[in-house]
Amino acid sequence: MKSGLSYLLAARQCEIDELERLARTSELVGVIGRFNHALQRERGISNIYLASRGERFGDMRVQQMAQCDALQRETIESFERLGADGQRVQNGARLFHRVAVVLQALDGLPELRSRVATQAMTPRGATEAYARLVAGLLAVVFEAADSAGDPEISRALVAMFNYMQGKEFAGQERAFGSATFASGRIDAPGQREWRHLIEQQQQCFQVFADFADAQAVAAEHASHDDRTLAQLERLRRVGWALADGPAESGAVLVWYDCCTQRLDAMRAIEDLLAANLRRLCERKIAEARDALRNQKAVMDGLHRQAGAQDASGLARFGPQLERSVFDLVQEQSRRLQAMSDELDTVRGALNERKVVERAKGLLMAHRQLSEEEAYKSLRQMAMNQKRRLVDVAEAVLAMADMLPGRPR
Amino acid sequence: MKSGLSYLLAARQCEIDELERLARTSELVGVIGRFNHALQRERGISNIYLASRGERFGDMRVQQMAQCDALQRETIESFERLGADGQRVQNGARLFHRVAVVLQALDGLPELRSRVATQAMTPRGATEAYARLVAGLLAVVFEAADSAGDPEISRALVAMFNYMQGKEFAGQERAFGSATFASGRIDAPGQREWRHLIEQQQQCFQVFADFADAQAVAAEHASHDDRTLAQLERLRRVGWALADGPAESGAVLVWYDCCTQRLDAMRAIEDLLAANLRRLCERKIAEARDALRNQKAVMDGLHRQAGAQDASGLARFGPQLERSVFDLVQEQSRRLQAMSDELDTVRGALNERKVVERAKGLLMAHRQLSEEEAYKSLRQMAMNQKRRLVDVAEAVLAMADMLPGRPR
Repeated sequence: MKSGLSYLLAARQCEIDELERLARTSELVGVIGRFNHALQRERGISNIYLASRGERFGDMRVQQMAQCDALQRETIESFERLGADGQRVQNGARLFHRVAVVLQALDGLPELRSRVATQAMTPRGATEAYARLVAGLLAVVFEAADSAGDPEISRALVAMFNYMQGKEFAGQERAFGSATFASGRIDAPGQREWRHLIEQQQQCFQVFADFADAQAVAAEHASHDDRTLAQLERLRRVGWALADGPAESGAVLVWYDCCTQRLDAMRAIEDLLAANLRRLCERKIAEARDALRNQKAVMDGLHRQAGAQDASGLARFGPQLERSVFDLVQEQSRRLQAMSDELDTVRGALNERKVVERAKGLLMAHRQLSEEEAYKSLRQMAMNQKRRLVDVAEAVLAMADMLPGRPR
Repeated sequence: MKSGLSYLLAARQCEIDELERLARTSELVGVIGRFNHALQRERGISNIYLASRGERFGDMRVQQMAQCDALQRETIESFERLGADGQRVQNGARLFHRVAVVLQALDGLPELRSRVATQAMTPRGATEAYARLVAGLLAVVFEAADSAGDPEISRALVAMFNYMQGKEFAGQERAFGSATFASGRIDAPGQREWRHLIEQQQQCFQVFADFADAQAVAAEHASHDDRTLAQLERLRRVGWALADGPAESGAVLVWYDCCTQRLDAMRAIEDLLAANLRRLCERKIAEARDALRNQKAVMDGLHRQAGAQDASGLARFGPQLERSVFDLVQEQSRRLQAMSDELDTVRGALNERKVVERAKGLLMAHRQLSEEEAYKSLRQMAMNQKRRLVDVAEAVLAMADMLPGRPR
């Protein structure tokens, strides 16, 4: 029969297993960050290529596709390491499903590229197709963050996910602006959409700032290049003014370079976050192993004392020893409770995204919309009502009972 | 390289693994229900034994202890099966820790019994000691419910946990009433405490009714014996009237029998719930295995068709086949999303308990209270303010920032 103390050790061992799993998932998140960056750049280049009717960025596009292919292989290898050697995968059903969605989307990449090559699609169509790929990869990162049982690591993953999501909105802004400058025109809905892309970046970076540790926030802050930012704001102003007349020619390339500088700086921060995450996992694993060793040593000491007492004919565990065991259990109770509380707080940040997903699902079911149409319809409501996406999503869910033909 | 489809299958396999794990945990929950019932009965008998200064229920107590010991062995064997054969344990750190707490508490059972035997404690002291044991076992059930990833099973576990918790409050009421009738006295705080025990039962049974399936609710309803209930209400009235003068002698035994009949009827319902849960798990596992088989068959079909097309020189996956794969992925997306939404709803019911735990932890840290003192202090506030425990707990948490010396 196992003693209560051996279950304390088993509980610790489960914590260590969970931390090791998180370390592996964190590696995957790092790889996805690099792959996303390559896809975002391919999207930006493809936009200019399409907008210039194949005159600009043709060679750059070919080089970028090769880089993307290499990172795609690396990402797929990372996927294949998930659950290999009988390793436990937390949240496996959802995580593997997200991977299946990504691989299915990647199957369509060759066709997407050939349509870009033959200029058989609009810049906007290409932007959306690449955005779907990136969204699928970010969903894998989201599941990883959502499954983390350690609050400190969960916090770091939430910060990282939001940073990556914010960077993706910045990438979408680069694509949107490129197409806008290339066309030389913008209308009122286009202005609203542009503004919304900027707001979504700000929201994501705010969550990042709330959840990242002070050192990461400082590094992110230091990465801002004032000149690039000033130019970005100037170009945004110029872009919006296209409603009143054309901009200087060549503005599209200035815009592309400015955004690309910004995105490359963000990529460096992502690498820093990934390295921090790796170190955090290593530190926590080392700490948990130390704690397990200490706990074992205390227990061995208790058993030796108990043995000595046995020989002298006393009770197996004297009151003092019982007290020590009691303290061990109490200390672990407090620690697990504190972890659980902290985790609930961090999870709150992930719930916003879940609310949006749920509202999307509802619109898909009731109005027979595709996922993309449902998202656009939510975004449109948010833009029209000047509200945050999550607030609109909550309003949609609150009205769910009033929608016709609600499936139960 | 694995295809997207093979990740779809991996996702399904993870669902099956999770369901099998839940089936094992459900067995454990059934065993705990039986052990709790035996402990509740031993508590009730010990109360009468103590209140009658050892004149009543002495033999019954000895028999009941033997029954308890047998069920304790069964429960411990169930604990040992957790994680045996390298089986995955979800939420392992918290679950094993709860088991360690239970085993530690059970180590104290022989001493508790000898203090009852020598009448070295009050009925109230004995009631609280047994209540701690039952609370520890219910905490194991709670972790099991909290870790369930399947919404239907989670729903059944939430219903079952609340039924078990409600039954425990009914058991505490039996003990409280026994001590009160035996003493022949009650004061205003005692009346408030009694009323609170009744309200807590009602709250638990309400959550049970909200989450159990219609058949279980109907069975529970049918289990109410009107005569027993009428007698219970009459005896409650008599008990409260002890403030004005003594009751008929022998009322304590009438009370004990009436409550025991009610608790035994509840035990039968618990068994029904456990059997339903077992069947539900079996059905879901069979369904998931069928779905996996079907998905594999569809995929084999797709691959055969793709092979035929290859031979005729066409693209490896024609547009029609791509459509089928797309549909498979979409269908699984919708299903997982619906499961996740439903799970969030069910989890809400568990959060109330977490809020109480958190408020308790806060009081323990700030006022240097033991867990029991913290709980009593919350309960006292609830009784004084005539509010639900969870509302008081939320108010305590909201005031957390104003408490002195708050640890960060």
